[in-house]
Amino acid sequence: MLRGPFLDRSWMAQNPSYDSADIIMLGLPFDGTVSYRSGSRFAPEQIRLASWGLEEYSPVFDKELADVNFHDAGDLEFPLGNTYKTIEQIRLNVEDIYKDGKKVFGIGGEHLVTLPEIQAVSRYVDNLAIVHFDAHTDLREEYLGEEMSHSAVIRHCSKIVGAENIKQIGIRSGMKEEWEFMKKHNTLCHKFSDLDCLKCKNIFVTVDLDCLDTSIMPGTGTPEAGGMTFKELNDWFYYLKDFNIVGADVVELAPDYDSSGASTAVATKVIRELLMAM
Amino acid sequence: MLRGPFLDRSWMAQNPSYDSADIIMLGLPFDGTVSYRSGSRFAPEQIRLASWGLEEYSPVFDKELADVNFHDAGDLEFPLGNTYKTIEQIRLNVEDIYKDGKKVFGIGGEHLVTLPEIQAVSRYVDNLAIVHFDAHTDLREEYLGEEMSHSAVIRHCSKIVGAENIKQIGIRSGMKEEWEFMKKHNTLCHKFSDLDCLKCKNIFVTVDLDCLDTSIMPGTGTPEAGGMTFKELNDWFYYLKDFNIVGADVVELAPDYDSSGASTAVATKVIRELLMAM
Amino acid sequence: MLRGPFLDRSWMAQNPSYDSADIIMLGLPFDGTVSYRSGSRFAPEQIRLASWGLEEYSPVFDKELADVNFHDAGDLEFPLGNTYKTIEQIRLNVEDIYKDGKKVFGIGGEHLVTLPEIQAVSRYVDNLAIVHFDAHTDLREEYLGEEMSHSAVIRHCSKIVGAENIKQIGIRSGMKEEWEFMKKHNTLCHKFSDLDCLKCKNIFVTVDLDCLDTSIMPGTGTPEAGGMTFKELNDWFYYLKDFNIVGADVVELAPDYDSSGASTAVATKVIRELLMAM
Amino acid sequence: MLRGPFLDRSWMAQNPSYDSADIIMLGLPFDGTVSYRSGSRFAPEQIRLASWGLEEYSPVFDKELADVNFHDAGDLEFPLGNTYKTIEQIRLNVEDIYKDGKKVFGIGGEHLVTLPEIQAVSRYVDNLAIVHFDAHTDLREEYLGEEMSHSAVIRHCSKIVGAENIKQIGIRSGMKEEWEFMKKHNTLCHKFSDLDCLKCKNIFVTVDLDCLDTSIMPGTGTPEAGGMTFKELNDWFYYLKDFNIVGADVVELAPDYDSSGASTAVATKVIRELLMAM
Amino acid sequence: MLRGPFLDRSWMAQNPSYDSADIIMLGLPFDGTVSYRSGSRFAPEQIRLASWGLEEYSPVFDKELADVNFHDAGDLEFPLGNTYKTIEQIRLNVEDIYKDGKKVFGIGGEHLVTLPEIQAVSRYVDNLAIVHFDAHTDLREEYLGEEMSHSAVIRHCSKIVGAENIKQIGIRSGMKEEWEFMKKHNTLCHKFSDLDCLKCKNIFVTVDLDCLDTSIMPGTGTPEAGGMTFKELNDWFYYLKDFNIVGADVVELAPDYDSSGASTAVATKVIRELLMAM
Amino acid sequence: MLRGPFLDRSWMAQNPSYDSADIIMLGLPFDGTVSYRSGSRFAPEQIRLASWGLEEYSPVFDKELADVNFHDAGDLEFPLGNTYKTIEQIRLNVEDIYKDGKKVFGIGGEHLVTLPEIQAVSRYVDNLAIVHFDAHTDLREEYLGEEMSHSAVIRHCSKIVGAENIKQIGIRSGMKEEWEFMKKHNTLCHKFSDLDCLKCKNIFVTVDLDCLDTSIMPGTGTPEAGGMTFKELNDWFYYLKDFNIVGADVVELAPDYDSSGASTAVATKVIRELLMAM
Repeated sequence: MLRGPFLDRSWMAQNPSYDSADIIMLGLPFDGTVSYRSGSRFAPEQIRLASWGLEEYSPVFDKELADVNFHDAGDLEFPLGNTYKTIEQIRLNVEDIYKDGKKVFGIGGEHLVTLPEIQAVSRYVDNLAIVHFDAHTDLREEYLGEEMSHSAVIRHCSKIVGAENIKQIGIRSGMKEEWEFMKKHNTLCHKFSDLDCLKCKNIFVTVDLDCLDTSIMPGTGTPEAGGMTFKELNDWFYYLKDFNIVGADVVELAPDYDSSGASTAVATKVIRELLMAM
Repeated sequence: MLRGPFLDRSWMAQNPSYDSADIIMLGLPFDGTVSYRSGSRFAPEQIRLASWGLEEYSPVFDKELADVNFHDAGDLEFPLGNTYKTIEQIRLNVEDIYKDGKKVFGIGGEHLVTLPEIQAVSRYVDNLAIVHFDAHTDLREEYLGEEMSHSAVIRHCSKIVGAENIKQIGIRSGMKEEWEFMKKHNTLCHKFSDLDCLKCKNIFVTVDLDCLDTSIMPGTGTPEAGGMTFKELNDWFYYLKDFNIVGADVVELAPDYDSSGASTAVATKVIRELLMAM
Repeated sequence: MLRGPFLDRSWMAQNPSYDSADIIMLGLPFDGTVSYRSGSRFAPEQIRLASWGLEEYSPVFDKELADVNFHDAGDLEFPLGNTYKTIEQIRLNVEDIYKDGKKVFGIGGEHLVTLPEIQAVSRYVDNLAIVHFDAHTDLREEYLGEEMSHSAVIRHCSKIVGAENIKQIGIRSGMKEEWEFMKKHNTLCHKFSDLDCLKCKNIFVTVDLDCLDTSIMPGTGTPEAGGMTFKELNDWFYYLKDFNIVGADVVELAPDYDSSGASTAVATKVIRELLMAM
Repeated sequence: MLRGPFLDRSWMAQNPSYDSADIIMLGLPFDGTVSYRSGSRFAPEQIRLASWGLEEYSPVFDKELADVNFHDAGDLEFPLGNTYKTIEQIRLNVEDIYKDGKKVFGIGGEHLVTLPEIQAVSRYVDNLAIVHFDAHTDLREEYLGEEMSHSAVIRHCSKIVGAENIKQIGIRSGMKEEWEFMKKHNTLCHKFSDLDCLKCKNIFVTVDLDCLDTSIMPGTGTPEAGGMTFKELNDWFYYLKDFNIVGADVVELAPDYDSSGASTAVATKVIRELLMAM
Repeated sequence: MLRGPFLDRSWMAQNPSYDSADIIMLGLPFDGTVSYRSGSRFAPEQIRLASWGLEEYSPVFDKELADVNFHDAGDLEFPLGNTYKTIEQIRLNVEDIYKDGKKVFGIGGEHLVTLPEIQAVSRYVDNLAIVHFDAHTDLREEYLGEEMSHSAVIRHCSKIVGAENIKQIGIRSGMKEEWEFMKKHNTLCHKFSDLDCLKCKNIFVTVDLDCLDTSIMPGTGTPEAGGMTFKELNDWFYYLKDFNIVGADVVELAPDYDSSGASTAVATKVIRELLMAM
Repeated sequence: MLRGPFLDRSWMAQNPSYDSADIIMLGLPFDGTVSYRSGSRFAPEQIRLASWGLEEYSPVFDKELADVNFHDAGDLEFPLGNTYKTIEQIRLNVEDIYKDGKKVFGIGGEHLVTLPEIQAVSRYVDNLAIVHFDAHTDLREEYLGEEMSHSAVIRHCSKIVGAENIKQIGIRSGMKEEWEFMKKHNTLCHKFSDLDCLKCKNIFVTVDLDCLDTSIMPGTGTPEAGGMTFKELNDWFYYLKDFNIVGADVVELAPDYDSSGASTAVATKVIRELLMAM
């Protein structure tokens, strides 16, 4: 036997037991439908490595990661090039989590992974609403003839939870039609209180990291100028701590596009802070 | 014959006809006089490719690119190492555009390209003023003995339009003498209304992308800490929409210095928004 | 009208007329099934830009590109995330080319694009054989349950042209079963004369750029140590000039993975030299 | 003899004479204890090269570098892998500076270099206090069993100057215990006037560049989301100009992690502005 | 419970049981004494991730990784900045391996890790010899006054096993004195048979990856022009398969210095092939 | 006074005295006429820094750098954008060197710097011949209408020394006309003895680093596939040690294009070895 000590290779401060954990972190390394640059398939593992550069303690929430009680389940393995089978596989695993009375915390991969998560959660959780952080509306009906696209994921989700139960934050890009959809359904939030109507809902928080400014998050598929600062995003998380969050994901880090590693470091802290809010 | 469909290789949403367009986008891949790092010669083509990662619709202007009616004329070909011939060639082509009753939208290339643009425009447009976004004053008389330098371009332009018709935004670097020139001629703007004295002028807008913060625009020749955010720049563009803009350029992207591609993505959106303002 | 001169934006020294050209260069920006790193979708356009850094003259073939008479048709536009529709679209366009009595020169994109090319060519050309340059055998039946994978492309092609009509060069990686397939069908070539049995065949040459050493071609999806030098590859091309080449492709450049641009420069010269051999 | 002219290879606008200078800039290329990514050993020389991309004039301080009267002494040479000898060597050289009646301006290297600087300064200067810019508290007692760690540097310094004489700015990461130390000793500053209690003290200013946001300073060992803008940092420097600064350092640039060079450009301007404040 | 399937996070094709394995792969993420560029601390984990881009089958050895029966024990955790404690910790763990009747396969980290490996192995294995692949002699007595340096590692090892039991391959850089040491002890090998005198010895193989050419292995601390090709290295490994190898290591990959990932891919294959030779 | 020790900031092992040195190393940071990618202006300083990663001893020449007796004079400062003044300035400084009875060793910068070097040397040295290592012929009369171009530098030099006194090595790219020039004047060397006709000449050796393969030297302006290995280049240098070399230069490193630093490391060793040959 080796005396070690050895470096831990799971997410910092996770609960090694699935059974006793409340939140299940699930890596979803899929990037098959992205419209511009792919590479988010490498995010879950690089984020896991980078988590060891963080502290366990969050001064904003005055809490330690160990208080959150989450388990890092590892990364699903997908059939490359087959979007439909991948979606099905995510849906089934997320259903397993909710059957077991736990909550999912997905680590993308691309944004399409949110669709099977919502499909699964909606079967086990009533009164579901979605808080959506993103640069892009993701409200297309299809993209270049394909329904299953990361550009259409929130539109598809809106058919499950109802457009009135979608709130969007950070949006700054979309087609005119998408913008009209947002206006019609009043989905875009400008201030914290715009979220208050969701206070008695069960909320799934989905964070496309390109909601952050391109300067903070160059390592993403479709960088879009004019985004949020990290502090602004964290303030929204802090406000959400009084809501009933039943699941979450953080998607669209493409680590190879930022050779400085800063994008990965930021993504990792976004995850820590969102875990704190749950 | 091939059935396709093929990817379009011009700027997204351009008018393919020169004759029916109002604005002529002209690539100016010249970087011969830069004092620090060159590479802006590769900007026009990389921006063109990146334009397809943008949406046509601008939520800020509530308008689509197709409403702007611009034609992408391609990139001029220059005699390398010969600054004077290059300047002459730019001047002649820009004169062609104004002879035809259109406006130029130059894509640099380095900032010296603005000089022949102003030379040309001033022959066809009276009452000309310049709104200059930049980190650097560009008000030197010469640089290391050379008059034809990107560090001297606005000084040369001021001799054409008059120093009183120059307004500068974002400036944070220069020699003491340049700063005194700015004070003497009151060129530096701090708030929107500082531009109002140009309301009845014909305005040429020149944007050196290093006016943006180094975090947003690392891919430029001379990054200078402490710059504007994209939103601040866009707010100035929005304010300018009520002015009479007769020409514009966006210069000094050096795409190879930002391997994440984020600088190029930002430059592309700067161009879209400035087109909207015209 | 503008006097210019303007930079040409098609491949250097192409024939601008489809009708009078003998060879049609067709960009195939698809990378949906890659098993490791994607990004080859950006290859055709970056190669086109880099072609202007080459000379027209090849000292090896003592010939100029203008003598080859090829037309650059541009890049097909694909439905992202839908592998089957993409394959179909490639097949139909390549059929168009052979209907018109011309030859295809495909620029990938990933290696799966070769399958629809072979499907199309085999409908118009009898007696077809394939010369396959690659690091990997690409002889799997499927990958993670998926038939349509770049790891299986030559296996699928072998069902169309017959395994006895496949010759492979540069292979250094595969599963044991694939290696046994190669031995059984004697597909692996060690010296030029191993190709001689294809002298009276019609040959399609497919070049996966990872046949080159990782040092020469780091910008590819699955770099595999121990590959060929450029000169060795070019010597094979030179030997092939006496064969009847009826089509070709060059695939698997992922330009963003080599920020130096050297991989793209090499890919461009590979294409020039293979064009010379046709 | 050569007529030149030659490029100057010392820091821009330095006083070439040690004897007549007031401030001695000293390069400290040591990075032996960093917990995550090293590389700050290359900072002093790359910063020196980049200084020539700056102007001598600071519009914020309305002063030129030449007015500061500093001498660039070059970079110390250290025994690699021996932390204790390195610290001793720094201490002795900094003592030399204060013996000669001058002030040190250290260029890291990692943050541990501040400890021997404070050891040396405290022998020659009474009534010493430290103003500490950083993302991290650096208040650990030890890291993985090692006392001599960049994560513990301010804790060690607090034993020399007293915890009541430490003021910290920009801190956003630390262990719970460190945060409690900060609260107990009231070290964290939120607004300028929190510094006023140090008005009659002799102040050493130590700047860990990761106090800046990850977007501005990706080229550092441990990027931490949510940091200051350059303007905010510069505003603190401007406020400090009315304090009695007896020494300073700027540490933790790891230039190779930001291939754009922007981090190095920012570090260089931080140094120029802090020199102005002294 | 989750149905998965999940991606395996250990080295491809390892034996998950320590007890039943013959070879123990041990990550040694230490880079504290490197003379030029560090970063090899990140190698073990990045190599592990990259191992999944390899095939299990080696055509050169006509064998699969599963036939080797190795266990991936993970990476040791070291006290940063303390060279002596780190060395001790490696020595003790490697002793554990040999006590258990197994062989070590170390993954560096820097080359100094070989010293405690040899210290440990030499206590359990008689008649020990070292085959050393490297660009540099590593035969200094000390470096800048420090004995414990990666530049001195083979000199120290020679004192344990005897200089006559050192054979060096690929060396192309060193001080004149080191070169004379090599000549005196006839350590440098030019052809395979130069190794034959070690046929009845127990051999430890240590591979500093900078033995490979800079083109193949740019991601290393001290790239040195004029090195071996991968095939040449592999040919040496193949020759060594008839020797009695009792331990091995592969060191000095600095993955962050090659943003293309090619260096990491090559290192991974070097490890696979050397495992095959054991 | 500071006790130090300080890092030396000149080229490793130089003679600090101009007067007593035999060879004067002169940095020539000019890149104003390059046809594709510039950036060689940053080469001299980055090479100087990297020289400290080399050993002083060359095993190939069995000699130490100190035996060469060269002085590092630093880098000339040029008027940016003015090609003619720059050329004149180089010419005058190189004349100074020969007036003083010494030899020049130029560090480019781009290849055009060789022209004023040859102009200067030819005034002081009779019977001059040029040995030219390059990927490109550089034999154009002009490029895009400009005579003063790095593509024309050898053609211009041939008018000074006579085409019969030019020998070219490594050439693999050029226009058909240039190739015919090479044939007509029999300039291209294939084997060592092709150089023997220059045995009684005074030789200037000019090395464009792109003569090396793109894998070895990605950091150059115009990478061209199919080049020499470092060993092949070094073998030529070794053969040249019996010739009378009266001057030399090494040009066209563009360090920023190879973020791994390997190209710079190779360039530095090329310089060391060529110094040994002189």
